[in-house]
Amino acid sequence: MTALFITFEGPEGAGKTTVLQQIAERLEGENVLFTREPGGIEIAEKIREVILNKAHTAMHERTEALLYAAARAQHFFEKVEPALQAGTHVLCDRFIDSSLAYQGYARGIGMSDVKGINEFAIGERMPDVTIFFDIQPEDGLARIQAADEREKNRLDVEGLAFHHKVYDGYQQLIAQDPARIRVVNANQPLQAVVDDVWAILSEALGK
Amino acid sequence: MTALFITFEGPEGAGKTTVLQQIAERLEGENVLFTREPGGIEIAEKIREVILNKAHTAMHERTEALLYAAARAQHFFEKVEPALQAGTHVLCDRFIDSSLAYQGYARGIGMSDVKGINEFAIGERMPDVTIFFDIQPEDGLARIQAADEREKNRLDVEGLAFHHKVYDGYQQLIAQDPARIRVVNANQPLQAVVDDVWAILSEALGK
Repeated sequence: MTALFITFEGPEGAGKTTVLQQIAERLEGENVLFTREPGGIEIAEKIREVILNKAHTAMHERTEALLYAAARAQHFFEKVEPALQAGTHVLCDRFIDSSLAYQGYARGIGMSDVKGINEFAIGERMPDVTIFFDIQPEDGLARIQAADEREKNRLDVEGLAFHHKVYDGYQQLIAQDPARIRVVNANQPLQAVVDDVWAILSEALGK
Repeated sequence: MTALFITFEGPEGAGKTTVLQQIAERLEGENVLFTREPGGIEIAEKIREVILNKAHTAMHERTEALLYAAARAQHFFEKVEPALQAGTHVLCDRFIDSSLAYQGYARGIGMSDVKGINEFAIGERMPDVTIFFDIQPEDGLARIQAADEREKNRLDVEGLAFHHKVYDGYQQLIAQDPARIRVVNANQPLQAVVDDVWAILSEALGK
Protein backbone atom coordinates (compact mmCIF):
# COMPACT_ATOMS: atom_id res chain seq x y z
CA MET A 1 0.00 0.00 0.00
CA THR A 2 1.14 3.53 -0.75
CA ALA A 3 2.41 5.54 2.21
CA LEU A 4 0.10 8.36 3.27
CA PHE A 5 0.93 11.97 4.05
CA ILE A 6 -1.37 13.19 6.83
CA THR A 7 -1.35 16.68 8.35
CA PHE A 8 -2.95 18.22 11.43
CA GLU A 9 -4.27 21.76 11.56
CA GLY A 10 -6.21 24.06 13.82
CA PRO A 11 -6.24 27.32 15.78
CA GLU A 12 -4.20 27.97 18.93
CA GLY A 13 -5.29 26.04 21.99
CA ALA A 14 -7.08 23.28 20.05
CA GLY A 15 -5.10 20.66 21.99
CA LYS A 16 -3.43 19.38 18.83
CA THR A 17 -0.03 18.71 20.39
CA THR A 18 -1.44 16.85 23.40
CA VAL A 19 -3.70 14.70 21.25
CA LEU A 20 -0.87 13.91 18.83
CA GLN A 21 1.32 12.71 21.71
CA GLN A 22 -1.34 10.13 22.59
CA ILE A 23 -1.76 9.16 18.93
CA ALA A 24 2.02 8.69 18.67
CA GLU A 25 1.91 6.31 21.65
CA ARG A 26 -0.83 4.27 20.02
CA LEU A 27 1.18 4.06 16.79
CA GLU A 28 4.49 3.19 18.45
CA GLY A 29 6.30 0.45 16.57
CA GLU A 30 4.25 1.13 13.43
CA ASN A 31 5.77 2.33 10.17
CA VAL A 32 4.97 5.97 10.89
CA LEU A 33 7.05 9.16 11.07
CA PHE A 34 5.83 12.08 13.20
CA THR A 35 7.25 15.48 12.30
CA ARG A 36 6.69 19.21 12.61
CA GLU A 37 8.52 21.89 10.61
CA PRO A 38 11.43 22.67 10.72
CA GLY A 39 11.81 19.17 12.18
CA GLY A 40 15.53 19.15 12.93
CA ILE A 41 16.45 19.77 9.29
CA GLU A 42 19.43 22.12 9.57
CA ILE A 43 18.75 24.33 6.54
CA ALA A 44 15.09 24.70 7.56
CA GLU A 45 16.16 25.55 11.12
CA LYS A 46 18.57 28.21 9.80
CA ILE A 47 15.76 29.75 7.72
CA ARG A 48 13.50 29.82 10.79
CA GLU A 49 16.26 31.64 12.68
CA VAL A 50 16.20 34.39 10.05
CA ILE A 51 12.39 34.65 10.38
CA LEU A 52 12.39 34.70 14.18
CA ASN A 53 15.43 37.00 14.69
CA LYS A 54 14.06 39.85 16.78
CA ALA A 55 16.43 42.33 15.09
CA HIS A 56 14.54 41.76 11.82
CA THR A 57 11.66 44.13 12.52
CA ALA A 58 11.86 45.44 8.94
CA MET A 59 10.94 42.06 7.46
CA HIS A 60 8.27 42.44 4.78
CA GLU A 61 5.30 40.08 4.95
CA ARG A 62 6.12 38.70 1.48
CA THR A 63 9.71 37.99 2.53
CA GLU A 64 8.36 36.14 5.58
CA ALA A 65 5.90 34.10 3.50
CA LEU A 66 8.68 33.13 1.06
CA LEU A 67 10.99 32.14 3.92
CA TYR A 68 8.30 29.92 5.47
CA ALA A 69 7.80 28.34 2.04
CA ALA A 70 11.58 27.85 1.67
CA ALA A 71 11.83 26.12 5.06
CA ARG A 72 8.82 24.00 4.07
CA ALA A 73 10.49 22.93 0.81
CA GLN A 74 13.66 21.83 2.58
CA HIS A 75 11.83 19.93 5.35
CA PHE A 76 9.58 18.33 2.73
CA PHE A 77 12.27 17.19 0.29
CA GLU A 78 14.83 16.21 2.92
CA LYS A 79 12.51 14.45 5.41
CA VAL A 80 8.89 13.95 4.29
CA GLU A 81 9.37 12.87 0.69
CA PRO A 82 12.16 10.31 1.34
CA ALA A 83 10.05 8.73 4.12
CA LEU A 84 7.01 8.47 1.84
CA GLN A 85 9.20 6.98 -0.91
CA ALA A 86 10.44 4.39 1.59
CA GLY A 87 6.84 3.42 2.36
CA THR A 88 6.59 5.20 5.73
CA HIS A 89 3.40 7.09 6.57
CA VAL A 90 4.20 10.70 7.52
CA LEU A 91 2.12 12.58 10.10
CA CYS A 92 2.96 16.29 10.18
CA ASP A 93 1.81 18.79 12.83
CA ARG A 94 0.85 21.88 10.75
CA PHE A 95 1.62 22.23 7.04
CA ILE A 96 0.48 24.26 4.03
CA ASP A 97 -2.99 25.08 5.42
CA SER A 98 -1.43 26.95 8.35
CA SER A 99 0.35 29.28 5.91
CA LEU A 100 -2.86 29.77 3.93
CA ALA A 101 -4.97 30.54 7.03
CA TYR A 102 -2.42 32.61 8.97
CA GLN A 103 -0.47 34.46 6.26
CA GLY A 104 -2.73 34.22 3.24
CA TYR A 105 -6.02 35.02 4.96
CA ALA A 106 -5.44 36.51 8.44
CA ARG A 107 -2.40 38.63 7.48
CA GLY A 108 -4.15 39.60 4.26
CA ILE A 109 -1.55 38.64 1.64
CA GLY A 110 -4.17 36.59 -0.21
CA MET A 111 -4.82 32.85 -0.03
CA SER A 112 -4.31 32.10 -3.73
CA ASP A 113 -0.96 33.95 -3.84
CA VAL A 114 0.33 32.18 -0.72
CA LYS A 115 -0.97 28.90 -2.14
CA GLY A 116 1.07 29.51 -5.31
CA ILE A 117 4.42 29.84 -3.54
CA ASN A 118 3.63 26.90 -1.25
CA GLU A 119 2.63 24.64 -4.13
CA PHE A 120 5.98 25.55 -5.67
CA ALA A 121 7.68 24.63 -2.37
CA ILE A 122 6.22 21.12 -2.21
CA GLY A 123 6.04 20.35 -5.93
CA GLU A 124 2.23 20.36 -5.58
CA ARG A 125 2.39 17.26 -3.33
CA MET A 126 -0.63 18.05 -1.16
CA PRO A 127 -1.42 15.98 1.96
CA ASP A 128 -3.65 12.94 1.37
CA VAL A 129 -5.62 13.61 4.54
CA THR A 130 -5.76 16.67 6.80
CA ILE A 131 -7.42 16.60 10.21
CA PHE A 132 -8.73 19.96 11.39
CA PHE A 133 -9.10 20.46 15.15
CA ASP A 134 -12.24 22.54 15.29
CA ILE A 135 -12.54 24.97 18.20
CA GLN A 136 -13.78 28.56 18.37
CA PRO A 137 -10.95 31.08 18.93
CA GLU A 138 -12.38 32.20 22.30
CA ASP A 139 -12.47 28.62 23.57
CA GLY A 140 -8.98 27.84 22.29
CA LEU A 141 -7.50 30.97 23.80
CA ALA A 142 -9.30 30.33 27.10
CA ARG A 143 -7.60 26.93 27.23
CA ILE A 144 -4.19 28.50 26.72
CA GLN A 145 -5.00 31.05 29.38
CA ALA A 146 -6.00 28.34 31.83
CA ALA A 147 -2.88 26.33 31.06
CA ASP A 148 -0.39 29.15 31.33
CA GLU A 149 -0.97 32.50 33.02
CA ARG A 150 2.00 33.99 31.15
CA GLU A 151 0.06 33.75 27.90
CA LYS A 152 -2.61 36.14 29.12
CA ASN A 153 -1.08 39.09 27.30
CA ARG A 154 -1.87 37.50 23.97
CA LEU A 155 -5.59 37.76 24.71
CA ASP A 156 -6.00 41.40 23.77
CA VAL A 157 -8.73 42.53 21.41
CA GLU A 158 -6.50 42.67 18.34
CA GLY A 159 -5.26 39.17 19.09
CA LEU A 160 -8.77 37.79 19.22
CA ALA A 161 -9.77 39.49 15.96
CA PHE A 162 -6.69 37.98 14.32
CA HIS A 163 -7.53 34.50 15.60
CA HIS A 164 -11.07 34.87 14.28
CA LYS A 165 -9.61 35.60 10.86
CA VAL A 166 -7.40 32.50 11.12
CA TYR A 167 -10.50 30.46 11.96
CA ASP A 168 -12.42 31.93 9.01
CA GLY A 169 -9.47 31.17 6.74
CA TYR A 170 -9.56 27.53 7.81
CA GLN A 171 -13.32 27.41 7.19
CA GLN A 172 -12.74 28.56 3.61
CA LEU A 173 -10.11 25.88 3.10
CA ILE A 174 -12.48 23.20 4.43
CA ALA A 175 -15.22 24.42 2.10
CA GLN A 176 -12.83 24.29 -0.86
CA ASP A 177 -11.51 20.81 -0.15
CA PRO A 178 -13.91 18.82 2.03
CA ALA A 179 -12.66 15.48 0.69
CA ARG A 180 -9.15 16.12 2.04
CA ILE A 181 -9.85 18.10 5.22
CA ARG A 182 -11.69 16.10 7.88
CA VAL A 183 -13.10 18.08 10.82
CA VAL A 184 -12.86 16.88 14.44
CA ASN A 185 -14.71 18.62 17.25
CA ALA A 186 -11.83 19.73 19.50
CA ASN A 187 -14.15 21.27 22.10
CA GLN A 188 -14.65 17.92 23.88
CA PRO A 189 -12.80 16.15 26.68
CA LEU A 190 -9.30 15.11 25.57
CA GLN A 191 -10.07 11.40 25.32
CA ALA A 192 -13.05 12.00 23.03
CA VAL A 193 -10.86 14.08 20.69
CA VAL A 194 -8.19 11.38 20.66
CA ASP A 195 -10.85 8.78 19.80
CA ASP A 196 -12.25 10.87 16.94
CA VAL A 197 -8.78 11.48 15.49
CA TRP A 198 -7.94 7.80 15.93
CA ALA A 199 -11.08 6.75 14.05
CA ILE A 200 -10.09 8.85 11.02
CA LEU A 201 -6.48 7.66 11.12
CA SER A 202 -7.44 4.00 11.51
CA GLU A 203 -9.67 4.21 8.49
CA ALA A 204 -7.07 6.09 6.41
CA LEU A 205 -4.22 3.76 7.37
CA GLY A 206 -6.43 0.70 6.87
CA LYS A 207 -5.89 -0.59 10.40
CA MET B 1 7.55 62.40 -14.31
CA THR B 2 7.23 58.93 -12.80
CA ALA B 3 10.46 57.34 -11.58
CA LEU B 4 11.64 54.41 -13.69
CA PHE B 5 12.82 50.99 -12.60
CA ILE B 6 15.56 49.82 -14.98
CA THR B 7 17.42 46.50 -14.75
CA PHE B 8 20.55 45.11 -16.44
CA GLU B 9 20.92 41.48 -17.42
CA GLY B 10 23.29 39.22 -19.29
CA PRO B 11 25.55 36.18 -19.16
CA GLU B 12 28.88 36.02 -17.31
CA GLY B 13 31.65 38.11 -18.83
CA ALA B 14 29.34 40.48 -20.69
CA GLY B 15 31.13 43.45 -19.13
CA LYS B 16 27.98 44.60 -17.36
CA THR B 17 29.67 45.73 -14.14
CA THR B 18 32.39 47.72 -15.94
CA VAL B 19 29.89 49.42 -18.22
CA LEU B 20 27.58 50.27 -15.30
CA GLN B 21 30.47 51.94 -13.45
CA GLN B 22 30.90 54.31 -16.40
CA ILE B 23 27.17 54.90 -16.65
CA ALA B 24 27.10 55.69 -12.93
CA GLU B 25 29.81 58.33 -13.46
CA ARG B 26 27.81 59.95 -16.27
CA LEU B 27 24.71 60.04 -14.04
CA GLU B 28 26.50 61.40 -10.96
CA GLY B 29 24.47 64.11 -9.28
CA GLU B 30 21.28 62.94 -11.00
CA ASN B 31 18.26 61.58 -9.14
CA VAL B 32 19.29 57.97 -9.65
CA LEU B 33 19.91 55.03 -7.30
CA PHE B 34 22.26 52.23 -8.39
CA THR B 35 21.77 48.92 -6.61
CA ARG B 36 22.43 45.21 -6.84
CA GLU B 37 20.81 42.55 -4.64
CA PRO B 38 21.20 42.08 -1.70
CA GLY B 39 22.32 45.70 -1.72
CA GLY B 40 23.30 46.16 1.93
CA ILE B 41 19.79 45.30 3.16
CA GLU B 42 20.49 43.31 6.30
CA ILE B 43 17.67 40.76 6.04
CA ALA B 44 18.48 40.12 2.37
CA GLU B 45 22.17 39.71 3.25
CA LYS B 46 21.27 37.21 5.98
CA ILE B 47 19.19 35.20 3.50
CA ARG B 48 22.09 35.20 1.04
CA GLU B 49 24.33 33.85 3.82
CA VAL B 50 21.99 30.87 4.20
CA ILE B 51 22.10 30.26 0.43
CA LEU B 52 25.89 30.57 0.15
CA ASN B 53 26.81 28.64 3.34
CA LYS B 54 29.09 25.87 2.09
CA ALA B 55 27.81 23.51 4.79
CA HIS B 56 24.38 23.58 3.11
CA THR B 57 25.13 21.00 0.41
CA ALA B 58 21.71 19.38 1.00
CA MET B 59 19.84 22.51 -0.11
CA HIS B 60 17.05 21.62 -2.54
CA GLU B 61 16.81 23.67 -5.73
CA ARG B 62 13.28 24.79 -4.78
CA THR B 63 14.48 25.95 -1.36
CA GLU B 64 17.23 27.93 -3.08
CA ALA B 65 14.81 29.51 -5.57
CA LEU B 66 12.46 30.53 -2.72
CA LEU B 67 15.36 32.00 -0.73
CA TYR B 68 16.50 34.08 -3.72
CA ALA B 69 12.90 35.27 -4.11
CA ALA B 70 12.73 36.10 -0.37
CA ALA B 71 15.94 38.16 -0.55
CA ARG B 72 14.55 39.86 -3.66
CA ALA B 73 11.32 40.77 -1.86
CA GLN B 74 13.17 42.35 1.05
CA HIS B 75 15.60 44.32 -1.14
CA PHE B 76 12.70 45.43 -3.32
CA PHE B 77 10.33 46.61 -0.58
CA GLU B 78 13.02 48.08 1.67
CA LYS B 79 15.17 49.81 -0.97
CA VAL B 80 13.79 49.86 -4.53
CA GLU B 81 10.12 50.63 -3.90
CA PRO B 82 10.71 53.51 -1.41
CA ALA B 83 13.16 55.12 -3.84
CA LEU B 84 10.68 54.86 -6.73
CA GLN B 85 7.95 56.29 -4.49
CA ALA B 86 10.24 59.22 -3.68
CA GLY B 87 10.70 59.91 -7.40
CA THR B 88 14.19 58.42 -7.73
CA HIS B 89 15.01 56.31 -10.78
CA VAL B 90 16.35 52.89 -9.74
CA LEU B 91 18.99 51.07 -11.80
CA CYS B 92 19.47 47.49 -10.64
CA ASP B 93 22.28 45.14 -11.75
CA ARG B 94 20.46 41.79 -12.24
CA PHE B 95 16.88 41.18 -11.18
CA ILE B 96 14.01 38.77 -11.90
CA ASP B 97 15.24 37.75 -15.39
CA SER B 98 18.44 36.33 -13.87
CA SER B 99 16.37 33.97 -11.71
CA LEU B 100 14.24 32.97 -14.70
CA ALA B 101 17.27 32.29 -16.95
CA TYR B 102 19.57 30.67 -14.37
CA GLN B 103 17.19 28.79 -12.07
CA GLY B 104 14.02 28.50 -14.12
CA TYR B 105 15.60 27.55 -17.43
CA ALA B 106 19.25 26.46 -16.97
CA ARG B 107 18.69 24.59 -13.67
CA GLY B 108 15.48 23.14 -15.10
CA ILE B 109 12.93 24.11 -12.42
CA GLY B 110 10.74 25.71 -15.07
CA MET B 111 10.49 29.36 -16.07
CA SER B 112 6.78 29.81 -15.36
CA ASP B 113 7.07 28.30 -11.86
CA VAL B 114 10.07 30.46 -10.97
CA LYS B 115 8.25 33.46 -12.46
CA GLY B 116 5.30 32.76 -10.15
CA ILE B 117 7.30 32.94 -6.92
CA ASN B 118 9.23 35.98 -8.14
CA GLU B 119 6.08 37.85 -9.14
CA PHE B 120 4.85 37.14 -5.61
CA ALA B 121 8.15 38.52 -4.26
CA ILE B 122 7.85 41.87 -6.04
CA GLY B 123 4.09 42.28 -6.02
CA GLU B 124 4.19 41.92 -9.82
CA ARG B 125 6.11 45.22 -10.13
CA MET B 126 8.16 44.32 -13.21
CA PRO B 127 11.00 46.59 -14.41
CA ASP B 128 9.97 49.32 -16.85
CA VAL B 129 13.05 48.77 -18.99
CA THR B 130 15.59 45.93 -19.01
CA ILE B 131 18.88 46.16 -20.92
CA PHE B 132 20.29 42.80 -22.00
CA PHE B 133 24.05 42.62 -22.60
CA ASP B 134 24.21 40.25 -25.54
CA ILE B 135 27.31 38.09 -25.83
CA GLN B 136 27.76 34.42 -26.73
CA PRO B 137 28.75 32.27 -23.74
CA GLU B 138 32.13 31.34 -25.32
CA ASP B 139 33.02 34.99 -25.83
CA GLY B 140 31.90 36.00 -22.34
CA LEU B 141 33.83 33.19 -20.70
CA ALA B 142 36.90 33.95 -22.81
CA ARG B 143 36.82 37.50 -21.46
CA ILE B 144 36.67 36.24 -17.88
CA GLN B 145 39.53 33.89 -18.66
CA ALA B 146 41.63 36.70 -20.11
CA ALA B 147 40.89 38.93 -17.14
CA ASP B 148 41.65 36.40 -14.44
CA GLU B 149 43.61 33.20 -14.90
CA ARG B 150 42.18 31.81 -11.66
CA GLU B 151 38.77 31.58 -13.31
CA LYS B 152 40.01 29.06 -15.86
CA ASN B 153 38.61 26.12 -13.93
CA ARG B 154 35.09 27.34 -14.58
CA LEU B 155 35.54 26.77 -18.29
CA ASP B 156 34.95 23.05 -18.28
CA VAL B 157 32.52 21.40 -20.67
CA GLU B 158 29.66 21.17 -18.19
CA GLY B 159 30.13 24.85 -17.35
CA LEU B 160 29.87 25.88 -20.97
CA ALA B 161 26.73 23.78 -21.54
CA PHE B 162 25.15 25.44 -18.51
CA HIS B 163 26.02 28.93 -19.76
CA HIS B 164 24.52 28.07 -23.15
CA LYS B 165 21.28 27.18 -21.37
CA VAL B 166 21.38 30.49 -19.49
CA TYR B 167 21.79 32.28 -22.80
CA ASP B 168 18.90 30.34 -24.36
CA GLY B 169 16.75 31.19 -21.33
CA TYR B 170 17.46 34.89 -21.84
CA GLN B 171 16.57 34.57 -25.55
CA GLN B 172 13.17 33.15 -24.60
CA LEU B 173 12.55 36.03 -22.19
CA ILE B 174 13.46 38.56 -24.88
CA ALA B 175 11.10 36.87 -27.34
CA GLN B 176 8.30 36.96 -24.75
CA ASP B 177 8.73 40.61 -23.80
CA PRO B 178 10.57 42.55 -26.54
CA ALA B 179 8.96 45.86 -25.52
CA ARG B 180 10.59 45.69 -22.06
CA ILE B 181 13.90 43.97 -22.81
CA ARG B 182 16.24 45.99 -25.04
CA VAL B 183 19.26 44.19 -26.46
CA VAL B 184 22.74 45.73 -26.59
CA ASN B 185 25.60 44.08 -28.49
CA ALA B 186 28.12 43.47 -25.70
CA ASN B 187 30.71 41.96 -28.05
CA GLN B 188 32.10 45.39 -28.99
CA PRO B 189 34.84 47.59 -27.51
CA LEU B 190 33.87 48.87 -24.05
CA GLN B 191 33.20 52.45 -25.15
CA ALA B 192 30.79 51.34 -27.89
CA VAL B 193 28.81 49.27 -25.35
CA VAL B 194 28.69 52.22 -22.94
CA ASP B 195 27.41 54.46 -25.75
CA ASP B 196 24.68 51.98 -26.75
CA VAL B 197 23.51 51.58 -23.14
CA TRP B 198 23.64 55.36 -22.66
CA ALA B 199 21.48 55.90 -25.74
CA ILE B 200 18.74 53.64 -24.35
CA LEU B 201 18.95 55.19 -20.87
CA SER B 202 18.91 58.76 -22.19
CA GLU B 203 15.78 58.04 -24.17
CA ALA B 204 14.07 56.25 -21.26
CA LEU B 205 14.97 58.94 -18.73
CA GLY B 206 14.05 61.72 -21.17
CA LYS B 207 17.47 63.35 -21.04
